[in-house]
Amino acid sequence: MARIVQKYGGTSVGDVERIRKVAERIKAIRDEGNELVIVVSARAGVTNELIARAKALCANPSEREMDQLLSVGEQETIALTAMALHGVGADAVSYTGAQAGIFTDKVHTKAKIKTINAKPIEADLKAGKVVIVAGFQGINEEGQITTLGRGGSDLTAIALAAALKADKCEIYTDVDGVYTADPRVVKDAKKLQEISYDEMLELASSGSKVMQSRSVEFAAKYGVVFEVRSSFNYNPGTIVKQEIAYMEKVVVRGVAVDKDQAKVIVSNILDKPGSAAKVFRALADASIIVDMIVQNVGRNGIANLTFTVPLTDSAKAQKTLEPVLDAIGGGQVAIHENIAKLSVVGVGMKTHSGVAATLFQALADASINIELISTSEIKISVVIDKSKAEEAARVAHAAFELEKL
Amino acid sequence: MARIVQKYGGTSVGDVERIRKVAERIKAIRDEGNELVIVVSARAGVTNELIARAKALCANPSEREMDQLLSVGEQETIALTAMALHGVGADAVSYTGAQAGIFTDKVHTKAKIKTINAKPIEADLKAGKVVIVAGFQGINEEGQITTLGRGGSDLTAIALAAALKADKCEIYTDVDGVYTADPRVVKDAKKLQEISYDEMLELASSGSKVMQSRSVEFAAKYGVVFEVRSSFNYNPGTIVKQEIAYMEKVVVRGVAVDKDQAKVIVSNILDKPGSAAKVFRALADASIIVDMIVQNVGRNGIANLTFTVPLTDSAKAQKTLEPVLDAIGGGQVAIHENIAKLSVVGVGMKTHSGVAATLFQALADASINIELISTSEIKISVVIDKSKAEEAARVAHAAFELEKL
Repeated sequence: MARIVQKYGGTSVGDVERIRKVAERIKAIRDEGNELVIVVSARAGVTNELIARAKALCANPSEREMDQLLSVGEQETIALTAMALHGVGADAVSYTGAQAGIFTDKVHTKAKIKTINAKPIEADLKAGKVVIVAGFQGINEEGQITTLGRGGSDLTAIALAAALKADKCEIYTDVDGVYTADPRVVKDAKKLQEISYDEMLELASSGSKVMQSRSVEFAAKYGVVFEVRSSFNYNPGTIVKQEIAYMEKVVVRGVAVDKDQAKVIVSNILDKPGSAAKVFRALADASIIVDMIVQNVGRNGIANLTFTVPLTDSAKAQKTLEPVLDAIGGGQVAIHENIAKLSVVGVGMKTHSGVAATLFQALADASINIELISTSEIKISVVIDKSKAEEAARVAHAAFELEKL
Repeated sequence: MARIVQKYGGTSVGDVERIRKVAERIKAIRDEGNELVIVVSARAGVTNELIARAKALCANPSEREMDQLLSVGEQETIALTAMALHGVGADAVSYTGAQAGIFTDKVHTKAKIKTINAKPIEADLKAGKVVIVAGFQGINEEGQITTLGRGGSDLTAIALAAALKADKCEIYTDVDGVYTADPRVVKDAKKLQEISYDEMLELASSGSKVMQSRSVEFAAKYGVVFEVRSSFNYNPGTIVKQEIAYMEKVVVRGVAVDKDQAKVIVSNILDKPGSAAKVFRALADASIIVDMIVQNVGRNGIANLTFTVPLTDSAKAQKTLEPVLDAIGGGQVAIHENIAKLSVVGVGMKTHSGVAATLFQALADASINIELISTSEIKISVVIDKSKAEEAARVAHAAFELEKL
């Protein structure tokens, strides 16, 4: 008997037919004698419909009211999933975030989990019930409904797995697992059996859409081993954990492409202490996340600062920086939106030389120009022209022979 | 400055356009300096969609899970209504049933309100906010979500009006008020300016769909004066209160038709003590509501028992009674579904003779046969053939000259 936390995303519970399929899958695992806690998202599309109604009524809806609104999506799914389990003859009970004792801070629309009171769930598990918990939501000390932000349901599952000391945590999604590259772009991309938290984090922050960084960070912090797998088949997925045994030659584990970035160039600014700080302080105050910072200084004490921001924040970045320019020498801001970020990721990289050289040569051989480079211990990222993104992914995948993994 | 509780039903908040209209109406009343508490239902159609999904997954869904499910309908509307008020520049805050401190008993899907802790709402009213409360829902002592059953949102509004000592309570619906008859059936039906609780109760239990009896009973018990009016125009509605000043001649106040009843005839049973009790005990145990009981006893000690039940319970009534027959003389049960109940209602009736005679004569003149008669102090009801229901309503309306009210 194992205690298992499973999370089913919006497409896995998209309509009653799919909910019934999920219930049958859960019932089978339950009948093997396992204790099950199921975290579900809103049905695919529901959250977007609710947001559309909100925006139609108010240009800038209050975050407190958005949480009241969006939390209904998951509440519908938990009740339907519990009923579906009853329908296939399994005892089950649904929990909203509040009922599940998921206490958060007071930050609406992106609350952080503070504590989980797992006692009610423990009692229902002991009573032989499958426990269905609404993902993405919690409650704060004042009784206000909060939501956890993007990827919140994954976070609910991983936090519950930690709080309940689960033996397994399974994240069911619409992909089979984590691949060496996006299989729609690189045909011979291979599914990874295992991946480390660090690699998963770099892939998450490099445009691989499988999971948000936050949930992976939380899992790493609490040592929650989890598996990413599909609810549409019974294939084994990818297990994400602390350390994995590499074969000697495996250096690069995956290639990720992110086309939702824009490049910002702040040019002709004075190269003196505080210029960069003023730029990044202003962006931080506007909650704009900055990546891949590069600074070039010319001989005349004039500097150029280049970095990337999320594409959706590019106009905001321009507006934010314009009032700052005078203070740093009256330079200019330019935004380039036609870019993509290509990253190669692998823990093996840090003890192997030549990874950067192999990547740059492969891109050069394909006549793909590199606009920016940034590296970490387990990742190399380059900014290239957006139209070359897919070709670059295929070229890099082939250069590191990932199809042979 | 007045403190006003308003309730908007499902068609009044059916889509974002209507919610915006409601917000504008609320804003205007707010701007006159009034304190406002707004109770909203689920958008029209939402509850039925949710029930359809539930039934698709489980033939007989658990009542606890139905409450988890159905309560999302109102929770969506409160958030959207608060946003709509923000959109038109009014400060507003939404409350779920639990947040509004509406504590109920533990009976899922038809909970009764036990207490209301109105302190949080009082505080927000004092802070100048319009308070939006989810109708139809509450919470029990164990933190479980409950719903109040049919007409639950009206009940929420009337209970809040009592708890908050509101100056006014307005029930907005898709009709203009209470009419002397259904205006779709009787063209010259007139809207009543005022009606007493008792008359409203008789109309409610006689098929007039304006409000459920429960909410009217609650209002009568706590002396909550309320107005039934339309959210689609600014016409005055009908005020429902304890005592109303009648003109001398006004005896009958309205005509109601109920086509959702079936007639049950239990024939050839022994006329001895306990026979009728066995029949009605069995029906009560099956939660079947019985109306218009008539018993005929023949010379030979054999009796016939006739009564009406809701049409949806007719098959259940037959099944319930068959095992009882042996114990009361081995009689038969027959169900007639092609019937309608016509009622004329008026407090004045009790001190005026001739009302019954006028009604029976009018029906006889129109060749409408009366199958059953039952009377109360303020109502006369007759069972007639379903195909004659509309004609009977017009004939009765004319006989009592209700078009001149």
